[in-house]
Order: sequence, then structure tokens, then C-alpha cells
Amino acid sequence: MSGKQVPLVVIRRLPRYHRYLGELLNNKIYRVSSTELSEKMGVTASQIRQDLNCFGGFGQQGYGYNVEMLYDSITKILGLNNGYKTIIIGAGNLGKALANYGGFSKRGFELCGIFDTDENVVGEEVAGITVKDYTELSDFIKHEKPDIAILAVPKTAVTEVADEVVQNGVKALWNFAYVDLDLPGDVLVENVHLSDSLMTLSYKMNKYGE
Amino acid sequence: MSGKQVPLVVIRRLPRYHRYLGELLNNKIYRVSSTELSEKMGVTASQIRQDLNCFGGFGQQGYGYNVEMLYDSITKILGLNNGYKTIIIGAGNLGKALANYGGFSKRGFELCGIFDTDENVVGEEVAGITVKDYTELSDFIKHEKPDIAILAVPKTAVTEVADEVVQNGVKALWNFAYVDLDLPGDVLVENVHLSDSLMTLSYKMNKYGE
Repeated sequence: MSGKQVPLVVIRRLPRYHRYLGELLNNKIYRVSSTELSEKMGVTASQIRQDLNCFGGFGQQGYGYNVEMLYDSITKILGLNNGYKTIIIGAGNLGKALANYGGFSKRGFELCGIFDTDENVVGEEVAGITVKDYTELSDFIKHEKPDIAILAVPKTAVTEVADEVVQNGVKALWNFAYVDLDLPGDVLVENVHLSDSLMTLSYKMNKYGE
Repeated sequence: MSGKQVPLVVIRRLPRYHRYLGELLNNKIYRVSSTELSEKMGVTASQIRQDLNCFGGFGQQGYGYNVEMLYDSITKILGLNNGYKTIIIGAGNLGKALANYGGFSKRGFELCGIFDTDENVVGEEVAGITVKDYTELSDFIKHEKPDIAILAVPKTAVTEVADEVVQNGVKALWNFAYVDLDLPGDVLVENVHLSDSLMTLSYKMNKYGE
């Protein structure tokens, strides 16, 4: 079940399946039909069957889906059972918001360090972790080997910060600065460009308001 | 130039064009070939020509693109010249990060109010604006008529908050809570589900690490 041939558009829907199935489990619902799941998710039942068939399918005729089994399978496909260790660079409002966001630890990501250059912030406690000085970053990475670096630094600093974490061996970046990073091919980057999302909303408003 | 027949995938690329062209203007570059633009953006020159042709095309053979004209046209297509008024609900770390993000005002969005229920936060100054009590929200919306409400509230509160702003006439929501909102069809919603993005990164790590 490597998921190698799974289209990206299906992959992008998996987190949503994961979220809904998690809610069902929270509500102690252990069995769900594709029709019920489709109503909850607002996609067609046939799409759900098609999507889940990409992974070998987990449904049984006349029974529906075993929620726990499906949830666990998607957890594995998404790699959420790997306990990826993360660090946050930048302990401004955004870094703090990300550190305090309960959804990450719930999904198996372990925050092990927060770094900043600002001496007013270094030493502060955020989400139970003491913010370290940025000069300690290289040693920390070499020692703790985090899997993911979350970049919550200003645009002007992000290229330098990305180079530093990558040189020290981090292979996956989650980047919130509004810059497309130019990095070695084996480094995975997921960009969150918030302005792009706001501009898409603005486009729709402009178009629908015509 | 309504852009009505423009595919969504092209629309999603427009904010990036807008960003790059803005950078060129900042560097006082007023003319650019599709080849130069393609190198900077990492897409093919033919894709750029195709994309921009959707809007009638702005290039001239042997001259390239007039950066300012192209920038202004994309600004209009994206509705960034409308000066949309925004409010932020929730003045926690995320709300503060969004309020302080310079990129929004630079793109023509005007922040006119911030609201919270927490009496420790109400009265605080954020990005030059005093945080108001949530109980003042309805009156404020009726009076100021903001175009966009940014929802930076916890998951447990977001349904109620969304209903309240929509009932008072706001037609566009930018939602950061990890909940798919169920709203009237004439309300535009753009969701930013941060966990989904992190899970996509995790999926790629899991896959590439196989």
C-alpha cells in the first residue's frame, strides 16, 4: 500500500477524510456507509469509493466502512504514525500560534524546539518549550535531528534560515514566508502563502460581484 | 476583461504573477520577456503566454511585457483595487499575526476592526487598532459594512461566529478554523486548513522515504 500511483488530487483530499473519520471515532461511531460519509463531506459517494479504492479499498458491500481501520490506514498513508519531530524558527505571533495549535500534536507531530534571534523572546516559554537563541540552532539540529523545520520568520530572513537548517540536515520545510525557496532537489518544501489565499477570495468577490 | 471563462488553475497562479511583477516594479524593472519571467517563476515561457492570453494577453512581439501594465491588470482581475474592508475575529496569536502582516495592506486590504471575547485582550492595541469586545460586533458590521471577516477563533466557536457575521451582512469569510462551514450559497468562504498542508508534507516525506 505505497500509494505511489495515487493522483495528487486524491492525496489532497486525504487529510479531510482523516479529520472526518477522527470526528466519527470521537463520537464513538465505528461504522459508516459511503453515503453517510459523502453527506458529511459534501462529495459524492462514488467519489469516496473511487478515492478509497486507490488504496485498495476498505469497504464491504452491505456493511460500509470500518471507521477505525480506515482511519488507521489513512494515518499510515499520510505518515502520521512516524512521530515526525518538528522545530519552529521564529517565535513571533505566527510561530506562537503554530506552537500552540493542538492539532499538530494530535496528528503525531512532536514539537521539540523553538528558536528566535530576538533577546526579548529568547527564554520565554511557548507551548511548554523554552525559546532558544538562534545561534544554538545548528548544534540542536545535529543533536536532535528534527524531521521538519517550520519557518515562521520574516521574508527578509527566510532564505538564510532555510539554507542553515538544510545544511544541517533537515529534509522537510514548512514555509510561511512569502518567498519561493530555491533548495536542493531532495528537500521537500510545503509553502503556505497566506496572501495567495486571500487574493483568491478577493478574485471571487470581484467576479461574483460583477 | 471579466475573466469569467478563466480556468481556476490559472486564477490560482495569478497571485504569484502579481507578487513577481510587484518585485520587478520595486527593482525599477519596467519591461520583461516571457523567458525572463518564466526563469524567475519556474514555469515554462509558453505557459506564461498561455496564462496571460486568458486575459487578452499583454505582450508585444519583440518587446515583451510592460510590467506596470501587466501588474495593474492583474491587480484589477484579482479585485485588489477595490480596497476591501476587513475585520478580524479573534485576537489571539494567529489573529495578531494576521493583523500585523504587512502584505495585506500592501495588497489593498484595509483592516478596520479586531474583536475578541477575552477581557484580557479587549482594549489592547494590535497593528494600530484597539481590540473591541465581541458584543460590539453586530453594531460595528451594520455601521462599517466590512467586506471580509477573517475568522481566527477556536474550532469550537467558529460556527457561531460565522453565523453572526453572515447574519449581519458579511458576504466573504476567510476561515482559519479547522471546520468546513455550512453557509448560505451567496457567502464566499476561503478556508485555510493548516493541518492539511502539514499532512501533505508528511505524506510526501513518508512516500519519498520509502
